[in-house]
Amino acid sequence: MKPVDLTLLREHLLAAIREDAGSGDVTSRSTLDADATAVAGYVTKQDLIVSGIRIVEELARLCDTGLEFRALRIDGDAVTGNTLLAEVRGSAHSILTLERISLNFLQRLSGIATATAEYVARVTGTAARIVDTRKTAPGLRLLDKYAVRCGGGMNHRVGLFDGVLIKNNHLVFHPSVADAVRTARQRLGHLARIEVEVTNQLELDDAIAGGADVIMLDNYTPDETRRAVLSVAGRVPLESSGGITLENVREYAEAGVDYVSVGALTHSVTGADIHLQVRPD
Amino acid sequence: MKPVDLTLLREHLLAAIREDAGSGDVTSRSTLDADATAVAGYVTKQDLIVSGIRIVEELARLCDTGLEFRALRIDGDAVTGNTLLAEVRGSAHSILTLERISLNFLQRLSGIATATAEYVARVTGTAARIVDTRKTAPGLRLLDKYAVRCGGGMNHRVGLFDGVLIKNNHLVFHPSVADAVRTARQRLGHLARIEVEVTNQLELDDAIAGGADVIMLDNYTPDETRRAVLSVAGRVPLESSGGITLENVREYAEAGVDYVSVGALTHSVTGADIHLQVRPD
Amino acid sequence: MKPVDLTLLREHLLAAIREDAGSGDVTSRSTLDADATAVAGYVTKQDLIVSGIRIVEELARLCDTGLEFRALRIDGDAVTGNTLLAEVRGSAHSILTLERISLNFLQRLSGIATATAEYVARVTGTAARIVDTRKTAPGLRLLDKYAVRCGGGMNHRVGLFDGVLIKNNHLVFHPSVADAVRTARQRLGHLARIEVEVTNQLELDDAIAGGADVIMLDNYTPDETRRAVLSVAGRVPLESSGGITLENVREYAEAGVDYVSVGALTHSVTGADIHLQVRPD
Amino acid sequence: MKPVDLTLLREHLLAAIREDAGSGDVTSRSTLDADATAVAGYVTKQDLIVSGIRIVEELARLCDTGLEFRALRIDGDAVTGNTLLAEVRGSAHSILTLERISLNFLQRLSGIATATAEYVARVTGTAARIVDTRKTAPGLRLLDKYAVRCGGGMNHRVGLFDGVLIKNNHLVFHPSVADAVRTARQRLGHLARIEVEVTNQLELDDAIAGGADVIMLDNYTPDETRRAVLSVAGRVPLESSGGITLENVREYAEAGVDYVSVGALTHSVTGADIHLQVRPD
Amino acid sequence: MKPVDLTLLREHLLAAIREDAGSGDVTSRSTLDADATAVAGYVTKQDLIVSGIRIVEELARLCDTGLEFRALRIDGDAVTGNTLLAEVRGSAHSILTLERISLNFLQRLSGIATATAEYVARVTGTAARIVDTRKTAPGLRLLDKYAVRCGGGMNHRVGLFDGVLIKNNHLVFHPSVADAVRTARQRLGHLARIEVEVTNQLELDDAIAGGADVIMLDNYTPDETRRAVLSVAGRVPLESSGGITLENVREYAEAGVDYVSVGALTHSVTGADIHLQVRPD
Amino acid sequence: MKPVDLTLLREHLLAAIREDAGSGDVTSRSTLDADATAVAGYVTKQDLIVSGIRIVEELARLCDTGLEFRALRIDGDAVTGNTLLAEVRGSAHSILTLERISLNFLQRLSGIATATAEYVARVTGTAARIVDTRKTAPGLRLLDKYAVRCGGGMNHRVGLFDGVLIKNNHLVFHPSVADAVRTARQRLGHLARIEVEVTNQLELDDAIAGGADVIMLDNYTPDETRRAVLSVAGRVPLESSGGITLENVREYAEAGVDYVSVGALTHSVTGADIHLQVRPD
Repeated sequence: MKPVDLTLLREHLLAAIREDAGSGDVTSRSTLDADATAVAGYVTKQDLIVSGIRIVEELARLCDTGLEFRALRIDGDAVTGNTLLAEVRGSAHSILTLERISLNFLQRLSGIATATAEYVARVTGTAARIVDTRKTAPGLRLLDKYAVRCGGGMNHRVGLFDGVLIKNNHLVFHPSVADAVRTARQRLGHLARIEVEVTNQLELDDAIAGGADVIMLDNYTPDETRRAVLSVAGRVPLESSGGITLENVREYAEAGVDYVSVGALTHSVTGADIHLQVRPD
Repeated sequence: MKPVDLTLLREHLLAAIREDAGSGDVTSRSTLDADATAVAGYVTKQDLIVSGIRIVEELARLCDTGLEFRALRIDGDAVTGNTLLAEVRGSAHSILTLERISLNFLQRLSGIATATAEYVARVTGTAARIVDTRKTAPGLRLLDKYAVRCGGGMNHRVGLFDGVLIKNNHLVFHPSVADAVRTARQRLGHLARIEVEVTNQLELDDAIAGGADVIMLDNYTPDETRRAVLSVAGRVPLESSGGITLENVREYAEAGVDYVSVGALTHSVTGADIHLQVRPD
Repeated sequence: MKPVDLTLLREHLLAAIREDAGSGDVTSRSTLDADATAVAGYVTKQDLIVSGIRIVEELARLCDTGLEFRALRIDGDAVTGNTLLAEVRGSAHSILTLERISLNFLQRLSGIATATAEYVARVTGTAARIVDTRKTAPGLRLLDKYAVRCGGGMNHRVGLFDGVLIKNNHLVFHPSVADAVRTARQRLGHLARIEVEVTNQLELDDAIAGGADVIMLDNYTPDETRRAVLSVAGRVPLESSGGITLENVREYAEAGVDYVSVGALTHSVTGADIHLQVRPD
Repeated sequence: MKPVDLTLLREHLLAAIREDAGSGDVTSRSTLDADATAVAGYVTKQDLIVSGIRIVEELARLCDTGLEFRALRIDGDAVTGNTLLAEVRGSAHSILTLERISLNFLQRLSGIATATAEYVARVTGTAARIVDTRKTAPGLRLLDKYAVRCGGGMNHRVGLFDGVLIKNNHLVFHPSVADAVRTARQRLGHLARIEVEVTNQLELDDAIAGGADVIMLDNYTPDETRRAVLSVAGRVPLESSGGITLENVREYAEAGVDYVSVGALTHSVTGADIHLQVRPD
Repeated sequence: MKPVDLTLLREHLLAAIREDAGSGDVTSRSTLDADATAVAGYVTKQDLIVSGIRIVEELARLCDTGLEFRALRIDGDAVTGNTLLAEVRGSAHSILTLERISLNFLQRLSGIATATAEYVARVTGTAARIVDTRKTAPGLRLLDKYAVRCGGGMNHRVGLFDGVLIKNNHLVFHPSVADAVRTARQRLGHLARIEVEVTNQLELDDAIAGGADVIMLDNYTPDETRRAVLSVAGRVPLESSGGITLENVREYAEAGVDYVSVGALTHSVTGADIHLQVRPD
Repeated sequence: MKPVDLTLLREHLLAAIREDAGSGDVTSRSTLDADATAVAGYVTKQDLIVSGIRIVEELARLCDTGLEFRALRIDGDAVTGNTLLAEVRGSAHSILTLERISLNFLQRLSGIATATAEYVARVTGTAARIVDTRKTAPGLRLLDKYAVRCGGGMNHRVGLFDGVLIKNNHLVFHPSVADAVRTARQRLGHLARIEVEVTNQLELDDAIAGGADVIMLDNYTPDETRRAVLSVAGRVPLESSGGITLENVREYAEAGVDYVSVGALTHSVTGADIHLQVRPD
């Protein structure tokens, strides 16, 4: 997260604070003395890859510029359970208001990073790279994709605006895959690569004939994938997509594709187990 | 979703469109003729509880007021795989831009509703109700909680502002649970109920002595829960929380608590399998 | 005002600055040298309860981070006329642009706090507490309610979202008050108390039968209030509402109700008399 | 209110809805059936000048485009108590959510218009016009000033950006009033008139010598005002300001000034008594 | 402009309206009767390529949904002076408020489209395409680039996010152009092409050795460009950039480059001459 | 640029950053090491009047609070080519992301200031002042007008809200110019001057008869202008408008008008030639 990226996220972080804190944290207001101070630690309860520490720091700053935040780990670190990731010190009220807001970010992002790292580990030694998709939680695209990078994954396009991926729902408007690719090529700028999704050998051949830059093998079995890799023989990079799980990801990677994209990385996240431990200071 | 609720969500829906469509959908712009029209159907690939149809309708309207949207199912419906949930007709470009944006909402919300319904089914016949938490994806609180209702669950407080829940991190600032509850009572308005989280019998007794309105049993085993229910003997409602899974939820319900809250409903969502099938029109 | 509350108000404060300063303060730009500096004091012209000093400080910071702000009194202080509340030092242009913007907040909030304190003083020695309503200036709800607290009053619910109050306009959809209360109870979460507004003894009895948690006596005379208090005999808290003035508030309080809500606290505010005295520095 | 003015106010109206409705109207949600419909009337409980009907119409449209709104009176109308101003028909839930939000606008604006009309009536037959100030509720400047026009008053400048008014706090940076006026004249565009506030005869003479276009007599008594009018002898328009009440406003007007500005019109508003009567439909 | 693109521009269009109309159009308010209606025509005073008609339509709708807008020409049309481009009918006040706001868009965009078409015409018959840059007016990037397309030009990347262009200011951090290209390649996703800016033959050879996908010849003379084209011999596409004018653009095109980028298209715009003719209706 | 003016511009500056940086600067991310630092200088390539340094400083701060910015020249300075205007030091990534965003502001504003200064120089020794118009780039009104001031020009009204200018499109709704002026006068506040646009002697005489405060001579030749000046004989200030160029501006000024307004200052801007030179630090 570069500073300018955090600037661009500020509105989103403020929205998250507003969503939870709304008209005020009535529990903290009614149970804490106005001048109570605390020290609090973000502590892991499982092994994980850290992602979101910089976001938590920014959230703390937005909630209360008087809070002192100290990161002990950085995004991308692999840590074991019971690790202190960061400490925050200052107004007890501010820290308790911040608790769930910050954990919701930290647990989701670390969950994504950790899952990504598992997929990456499974394909070690192959040439395949683990890639994400646009199946992210609405509003969290940039953060979800940042977490994938923290886990060692590679980002596919961010949105509809920064990459061309012709899918079946576009192909139905064209007589052939090749026609779709050629039509797009004429209308696109000179920095665009064209990826096209295919579902069988005929379309695959057609995509290459049309001049596709990257080809996505949609819902191929590992066997079909192997045959496709052989037939393409390195002419264009290949990406496996659809139905990839931790169990079968290595089969796809060993089939020889260049990329394996995994929607579950972001559409079916398991939040990492991280707590905030607070004590009076 | 009442109309005014959709009004309040509009900014969030626009942000989701902006996030994905950004400076323009370059694939649709380069592969589709400007005046191409299409008809498209949202189709399930699994059994599920529907949630998010109204959101998809609103997204379609925001993307292009010329799109005709027709809902065939409503939020809360239980449907089987291969069911047509809704149809949209109009500009092919608009429909393809809308595809992933709308599916990301629909898959997440239906995933939450479906998981909730499974928990609810497990406790059938007991007096316990399934309750959500604030462990939601940042920015999606209201929608995540709406999906829980679609699945038959009950909402806990929406945020820090509309309910009092004194947790361990507040209790460390007080000599006793009873002191925390009494302090809060004095400072709160007359419409507030006070829930307090306890971890053992001493705290439980103390909470009742202090006048808590609801007590949350934090990380109790089913056995401990049963003993707690007996000891409280109906004086205040009880809520089980922490470590609840599909496997053990019935045990907690049968232990006699009034509420069982399940963080996984929203912090570890599995997106439901729903596709958009497009054809030229 | 906690730091996070100020964060959530920032957009509103900026809107107030934008509203007045718009495309620029042409008077200051044309009459002051660019490098002129000033020192200015917020001075009371009447006895009052201070409210809004923290807001003025935040406004000063937003207008010009170079301004030095020094608070001499804090929100909630009772002061006499001719008291210096705060001092600001720095660019003369910035201070003069800030003048009316900040006074509009400070005068309104101190006006509300002062009026609230008068009502509170009138009921001294009784068990009744002075409560506000949602009859606030649009956009100023949180600040108006903060000012009520500064004056010693208690806040009723902040908005439609954090408290249940069944009024006559809801009751017309139900065969009885009891039915309305019971219907609501079934659909509500476990942290909600239900208050219901009644206008006669029949409804009052019905409300208690239905299980209302708090009852609002709408437009009762003091005599009717006394009879209601007797009949309820402490079973639920009672709130007087409608037609309350400084002249009759004690009568209601002495009738034995727990709360007296006063719409005029915020819907008919008299701005407190406070000036800004500026001199070159 | 021109359509484009309403466009510019939309964000403010949405903010007011968000402020009250927040995460949802829990009372309406729990007491009304989802498909309940209602008809509701805005009814006066006192004589008043109407202001805000167009705003209520816009709020209704923002809350729920399905609501039918029918205005029976227009802004600026003088009506007696028990007059039906407007009717709205549609979803009961939407109408009840809208109730307080819309009344808060309508009561404040009609309160301002009504008070303005009283001041205007007091100066009937004189040449003086009643003028407002910038002492408005933060965020409501344009609406407060619109209400003044509905009541027959005239608007002073809207903000710091559209009129020059040199006040005492500017004058302290200049050796003389004339110097301040001349300095400003040199730096200002050709469409600016310069008004300057004076507190005695010396400053008044100096202001005229400096070429002021309008002179504000600050906190003059009626007698002092009369003498000032005589001494100025029509060379520039004069405005009385400070300490004006319903009781003394005619004295100032009869003293011969052109304008009398009244801060209380907007800084100390008494909300007009208007109710919403709802019945099932 | 697709509907969803207009949705994403709405905030910007509203900001433009707010910027000009601010607290109200005092001239129209004071000179026009409230119910005056008008018909107005957007008429060209010169030959031009139209761009912005859809934007004017959207502005009209935002200002006043009661306005009837009828486009007689569409974006991209080449028209002569004295052509009626569009007509708007409705409230005179709304039309006059809209006048300058809409003309500022229409004149700028048509100015850009017209200038682009002139460059495109100059390179007719060559293989070179005219390309824009990121040197646009802040806030108008998408519209400026849309106007370039209306004029027959091709868009370079929209922003820093959707294309890789390694410029001299990046190269200074690398020992060689090849190193920069290779470093980027490793870190980029599979849909990115890499363009690199070179200033001499050495860098050009190095860029090709490093595997650049596109090469920008920065501030080459036409002669140097010819030599570069020969040396590259079609291995990668080439883009001329820097110092291109209407006078020399054909020389560059004939030198054999694939693209010629022209910053002046958007950084030094001459507004097209278009008027609004209004008459009472 | 006063601090409060920068506060009011912040949203616009953030929008400009968001527009270019979007989902991230992929070139800098892929070519620069995360901890690379740089020093960079804004250097002129032509003689110019500086405008925008304060804006660049604010942009730098918004992009990355860790950047050190040092201005060597201030807005309004006349400098020659090859002058270092400002230096920025810090994260190489931040500086390169900032490059084009900041140059787009600096080049436009300095371009406007420089052009304005040329017009001002041409009328040296006459009584005429160079004035701008509302023909600015949408969204940049305040900055464009600030640049005009930096170049020695005078601002006409900022928008429709802070000055009255009755143009031909208003006059068509009135039987005479005098009628339009008189109607406006009755409805306007006491700080408004009325300017009216005339196209011939008849309208000019009528405008004076109606009491116009300023008269704009629309599309007069220099000869016609001279005759108009003689006929008016100093009764009201005159402004020439329409068809003014660097070549003929002195003729208009010498004809004796008080103001000459030049739309081209802002509607047809030539960006000044300024570069950012970056080196590793």
